[in-house]
Amino acid sequence: MKKSFILLFLSLALFSHQEKVVAQTLNASTAQELQDAIAEAKAGNEIVLQNGVWKDIQIKFYGEGTVDKPIILRAETPGKVSIEGVSNLKLGGKYLVVRDLHFKNGYTPSNSVIQFKINEDSIANHSRITNCVIDEFTQPNREVSDHWIEFWGRNNQLDHSSIVGKSNFGPTVRVFLKGNEHVNNHHQIVYNHFGPRPRKGGPHGETLQIGSSHTSMTPSYTNVSNNFFDRCNGEVEIISNKSNFNEYRNNIFFESEGSLVLRHGNYCTIDGNVFIGNDDSEFIGGIRVINTGHWITNNYFYKIKGNEFRSALAVMNGIPKSPLNRYNQVTDVVVAYNTYIDCKSPFQFGVGTNIDKKDVLPASEIRSARPERMLLANNLVYNHKEDQYPIVNYDDVGGVTFKNNILNSENKSGVTSDGISTKVFEVKQVSEDLYIPTKNQEDVFHGFDFETIKSDLFGADRQKQNSIGAISLPVSGNQVLVQKNLYGSKWFSTEASNYTPKTIAVSSAKSLISKLKNAHSGDILSLKSGVYKINTTLLIDKNITITSSDKDKKAELRFATGITGFEMHPKGILNLENISIKGDKTQDAIVTLDKNMSKAFNLFIKNTEISKFKSVIKAYKASFADTIAIDNSNIKDCLTGILLNTETDAKGDYNAEFVFITNSTFDQVQSSVLNYYRGGYDESTIGGNLVLKNNTFTNSGQADESGLLIQNHGIVNVIFSDNTFRDNPVKEIAILWGEKGQKPVNNVTENSGEIRIEQNLKQKLMY
Amino acid sequence: MKKSFILLFLSLALFSHQEKVVAQTLNASTAQELQDAIAEAKAGNEIVLQNGVWKDIQIKFYGEGTVDKPIILRAETPGKVSIEGVSNLKLGGKYLVVRDLHFKNGYTPSNSVIQFKINEDSIANHSRITNCVIDEFTQPNREVSDHWIEFWGRNNQLDHSSIVGKSNFGPTVRVFLKGNEHVNNHHQIVYNHFGPRPRKGGPHGETLQIGSSHTSMTPSYTNVSNNFFDRCNGEVEIISNKSNFNEYRNNIFFESEGSLVLRHGNYCTIDGNVFIGNDDSEFIGGIRVINTGHWITNNYFYKIKGNEFRSALAVMNGIPKSPLNRYNQVTDVVVAYNTYIDCKSPFQFGVGTNIDKKDVLPASEIRSARPERMLLANNLVYNHKEDQYPIVNYDDVGGVTFKNNILNSENKSGVTSDGISTKVFEVKQVSEDLYIPTKNQEDVFHGFDFETIKSDLFGADRQKQNSIGAISLPVSGNQVLVQKNLYGSKWFSTEASNYTPKTIAVSSAKSLISKLKNAHSGDILSLKSGVYKINTTLLIDKNITITSSDKDKKAELRFATGITGFEMHPKGILNLENISIKGDKTQDAIVTLDKNMSKAFNLFIKNTEISKFKSVIKAYKASFADTIAIDNSNIKDCLTGILLNTETDAKGDYNAEFVFITNSTFDQVQSSVLNYYRGGYDESTIGGNLVLKNNTFTNSGQADESGLLIQNHGIVNVIFSDNTFRDNPVKEIAILWGEKGQKPVNNVTENSGEIRIEQNLKQKLMY
Repeated sequence: MKKSFILLFLSLALFSHQEKVVAQTLNASTAQELQDAIAEAKAGNEIVLQNGVWKDIQIKFYGEGTVDKPIILRAETPGKVSIEGVSNLKLGGKYLVVRDLHFKNGYTPSNSVIQFKINEDSIANHSRITNCVIDEFTQPNREVSDHWIEFWGRNNQLDHSSIVGKSNFGPTVRVFLKGNEHVNNHHQIVYNHFGPRPRKGGPHGETLQIGSSHTSMTPSYTNVSNNFFDRCNGEVEIISNKSNFNEYRNNIFFESEGSLVLRHGNYCTIDGNVFIGNDDSEFIGGIRVINTGHWITNNYFYKIKGNEFRSALAVMNGIPKSPLNRYNQVTDVVVAYNTYIDCKSPFQFGVGTNIDKKDVLPASEIRSARPERMLLANNLVYNHKEDQYPIVNYDDVGGVTFKNNILNSENKSGVTSDGISTKVFEVKQVSEDLYIPTKNQEDVFHGFDFETIKSDLFGADRQKQNSIGAISLPVSGNQVLVQKNLYGSKWFSTEASNYTPKTIAVSSAKSLISKLKNAHSGDILSLKSGVYKINTTLLIDKNITITSSDKDKKAELRFATGITGFEMHPKGILNLENISIKGDKTQDAIVTLDKNMSKAFNLFIKNTEISKFKSVIKAYKASFADTIAIDNSNIKDCLTGILLNTETDAKGDYNAEFVFITNSTFDQVQSSVLNYYRGGYDESTIGGNLVLKNNTFTNSGQADESGLLIQNHGIVNVIFSDNTFRDNPVKEIAILWGEKGQKPVNNVTENSGEIRIEQNLKQKLMY
Repeated sequence: MKKSFILLFLSLALFSHQEKVVAQTLNASTAQELQDAIAEAKAGNEIVLQNGVWKDIQIKFYGEGTVDKPIILRAETPGKVSIEGVSNLKLGGKYLVVRDLHFKNGYTPSNSVIQFKINEDSIANHSRITNCVIDEFTQPNREVSDHWIEFWGRNNQLDHSSIVGKSNFGPTVRVFLKGNEHVNNHHQIVYNHFGPRPRKGGPHGETLQIGSSHTSMTPSYTNVSNNFFDRCNGEVEIISNKSNFNEYRNNIFFESEGSLVLRHGNYCTIDGNVFIGNDDSEFIGGIRVINTGHWITNNYFYKIKGNEFRSALAVMNGIPKSPLNRYNQVTDVVVAYNTYIDCKSPFQFGVGTNIDKKDVLPASEIRSARPERMLLANNLVYNHKEDQYPIVNYDDVGGVTFKNNILNSENKSGVTSDGISTKVFEVKQVSEDLYIPTKNQEDVFHGFDFETIKSDLFGADRQKQNSIGAISLPVSGNQVLVQKNLYGSKWFSTEASNYTPKTIAVSSAKSLISKLKNAHSGDILSLKSGVYKINTTLLIDKNITITSSDKDKKAELRFATGITGFEMHPKGILNLENISIKGDKTQDAIVTLDKNMSKAFNLFIKNTEISKFKSVIKAYKASFADTIAIDNSNIKDCLTGILLNTETDAKGDYNAEFVFITNSTFDQVQSSVLNYYRGGYDESTIGGNLVLKNNTFTNSGQADESGLLIQNHGIVNVIFSDNTFRDNPVKEIAILWGEKGQKPVNNVTENSGEIRIEQNLKQKLMY
């Protein structure tokens, strides 16, 4: 994008000027030498870390550079210095630059990996982290919270860095505003590559958090521009804005399962950003609006299919006279000159209204304050396949003015206005994901202060060429939305290597064990038919498929007394296909590590028989499965079924993001067949997803104290259909959560308990 | 002050430039001509209102001037054009100037007298009101709310105007921020004379209100500088700041019974202001602090004797996670380089803590959040008479840092710190109310961003001469605090004329009636001994004293059947001295008008006998007495006593500010002797003041349904001492409000009810 290049140039120019005047180089090859070098360094000096692994090192980089003569701490060769083990970096002073470092294979012993503050008396200002990488430098225990970069002070910068794979609690980057030293900070977060950040489950998985509710009245002026948010799936908020006057410009949000959320604070500018979704996901969102005075302009949304909180534009209802940490009313917000291509119902208003929950929530929780003095103007909505509901209103939208918005679909939504009109117009594809109208729609509305919207998404001067939507013609021929080489560290890539999986024949227990150990991630172990007596637990720390070479004669893994079947390790992916696994009721079939489950695991079980185990799947506390999918399989004669119920802290966490159980049978599972639990009410995160479809449950559940066959307490999204329940001696089959739209569909119940709907779950508030 | 002069010069320069280029004059002598002239006026034109009275006129002044060629609307001769009757003025457009007008003898039919907005589509910007006067242009009914000047739009100015005598509901000047058109307004409120504004009783009597809780997150940038707040006694808040980034500089707060209150909003600058109190009043306050990031510097406080809410520096406790309209915690506030001369306990912290009220208030009302990250540095406290308690802390002050503050008294308060030290130093008087140290205290603390405190109270460069306190030496010889000719309209004065009261002899009822009618305010009617049979109610609309020429042989006013004694009109002041007034139980002795009591009345009754009335004093709804004082008088054989109980709306209002009943007797008053009532709980205003001392009450109260002899529900300040209660057949004499420190002292009770203390009154919350 044109604008990106200009900013890039300015950014480089600013700092390249500094780096020309370096006077003296101080080399360091040990921690002591580094410490001495830092102590000795003066404005203009450059401290060089010798190539290699720096393990278990806590660097305090302090000093007083000047604008012309910063003090630089850098790798001998970019990317050849790795900081590993129990390590971190703190900066204090001014005009400090850190560059070219690689944090990996470790974690921080403190609150943060990189912190712009050594202590209250030594805060960094005018300092910069550039061309660095933090790669899966994540706490062994996912429940231990940290941040990877903490901004304090003023005028600090993170740029051209790659920040990848944080899976534990805590926002990746956090800007602090607690104290006059940190407000009006004008921090620059530019040209970074954030993500992928895996799904975390529950709250505290933001990629950026700027401020907090307690400092949400402060002026921040943080600039977040030209970053690539690449599958940042940590939670429902990719960015959580919690302070004032921040700017979000020209960022790419690529298939990130969340939104840019204006959670607290006011008067933000969100201009020229690109939000890219796809046809498959309803989790990828756009911008969620709370509070006052934001301007949302020139943004481009492609295939954003999210709903409610995750819609392309989600405008929330506020709480009248809201408490500081809850939801202020939306007022004086301007949404202008945005383009929505192939999005589903992009404009959603009154999101979060919960007037109907007034019996179960305190009055100070009821979001009844509708948006006021809000303006939507000059927005363009195009759908290749007609979307007749561009607007969803969960409450009245009388406080919203619509001016000169155009659609190419008929508008059958509950909101109509002269300011929303259907027109015949065309778009053409220019490059990947980029569609532009074939001609300008020049009938723009000139609202108050609209002259400040000077240019379009690509930097074209709107005084010279103007159009409804984010883009005004002409557009240069080769315009692309995402130019990956602009973002992140130059010497690092998150692209997966191209490994072609091997199929490895296995015919004995011994060979299974050794070949599993030596297999490459992605490989397939193909078992000859027969019984494999296994005397040791199979550890799964990579992507492994175990299958039978003859799918009609399944191999059988028979686990010895007391020997757990599979132990899932971080990033382990276990695919069981066309196989049989059997215990003797003294062991669990599949368990997680009981600690240090630092990253998620996955389970895919297909056409598989599982019998005679204490439990089928057992997740320990702080473990997390991204997906557990059981399809077309038979589970029989076990003490318990699938246990995903250890997150009992009532903090909104849970053990698995997606649980699919389909086309399977459960027979003689004595206790609960499934216990999938989320405790703690936090409506701002959305999670736990259960699909229970076309299964048969028989003779199960009698031993469970709850009297429930299937427990799904607190799980938000549940599909519960086409199942048969027969001869299960339970009081109830399941309790579904009415408020979240859960309902049984087309199930057959014979001689089993009933399926009950509870409209409003009573839950512990988390705030 | 040096700084004042510079600003004055700039201000005049700015606008004088505009006024040089006037091109055409449009004269108007009728409403139609004015309307035509406005319609016709172009940039640079001047519309001139012919001298005289313009009655019942609603002026809509619209037009598009330019910065060089404003459109001016002015009086032919400054001060010779008065706008009277039911009138107002609205402005819409830009670069409009209104000057030299006099609003008097009337009131507005709308929300405001002058409004910088005609309607939503015609808002004023870059417009100015200058050299105008609004003088007692107050609603006939005090309970009808209005503002005298409403700011809307941006870059508007009120300057060199005199705004006097608003006695009805509503802040005198209000700045609105509801909508993007009105934020970042940079309005200028400069060189005005505000006040006197009389006591209003209860809330809604501010002189300036900038924003509201609902828009308290908005940036306002209103500049309130170099104004004279002259006895602005409307309520406990002289200025109610409710938005962000406002500046209050170099204003004089002269004997104003309230404070500059940072009620909502953050990051205000309060620099170089002067707060002048006196030896007599505990109502005159300083600065009350709530919220975040304010800087309070270079202010001078003289004889501020207020306590708690009204202390020189009142730092409130907040409500954790406060609702939008309540009390945010104080954080990141800097109080530096201020001087406190002869103030009483100037620093008060944890003001408003009410943890002990948790049984009677909801949790969201409990102010338990103490100030955090607050800094007090370089402040100077001098008392000619030692004050050993410079600090009062109602709660812990652990979140406050003290640096280099000095006192000349020993510090025996509960808060000590190395940053508060007692030193021997001297001050000398330079001019009225201005005391300066005899030498600089150069050991100043250099806090974060303190280099932005560039100059002292008088504009001296702190880089060249620096000292603890508001003033650094040397100070030019003739420095004065208040230079009245700087403020307000040039052609108007609020100084009282020098009338010497006459004593007028009266010897018959007829002469009493006619001489009362013709008397000048301030005159004394001296009655010969004897009985005066009065057949007509005596109207009191001025300051009148009625007394007996021979105080040992009191004249007796005997009112005919059904004839009310005295009827109090707005601004009526009745002094009864050494006289007897008598009815026949068919009439009231003293009543107010039942409507249009637009202004307060006063009653002073001394050495007087009052007998045989239905009531002694009866106040109608919306009437208000500033002071009712009964001393050394005898009240006997009446149906009821003093009835100040008609403000039953539960909105925090009441019928009299001060009620003094001393050294008097009440005998055979059948119903309640006194009913003095305030309904509605609003802790942010403080009022109703009752002194009941050294009286004797006998044989009274038996007919009152309440079972109470004296009713003082909701009255905040009560002294109840040295009274004798004998043979009053009541259940209780009175209920005192324990939380407000009310207690009976040294009363004698014989054969009467008891005096009870109720710690926490149950009251209706007003918000």
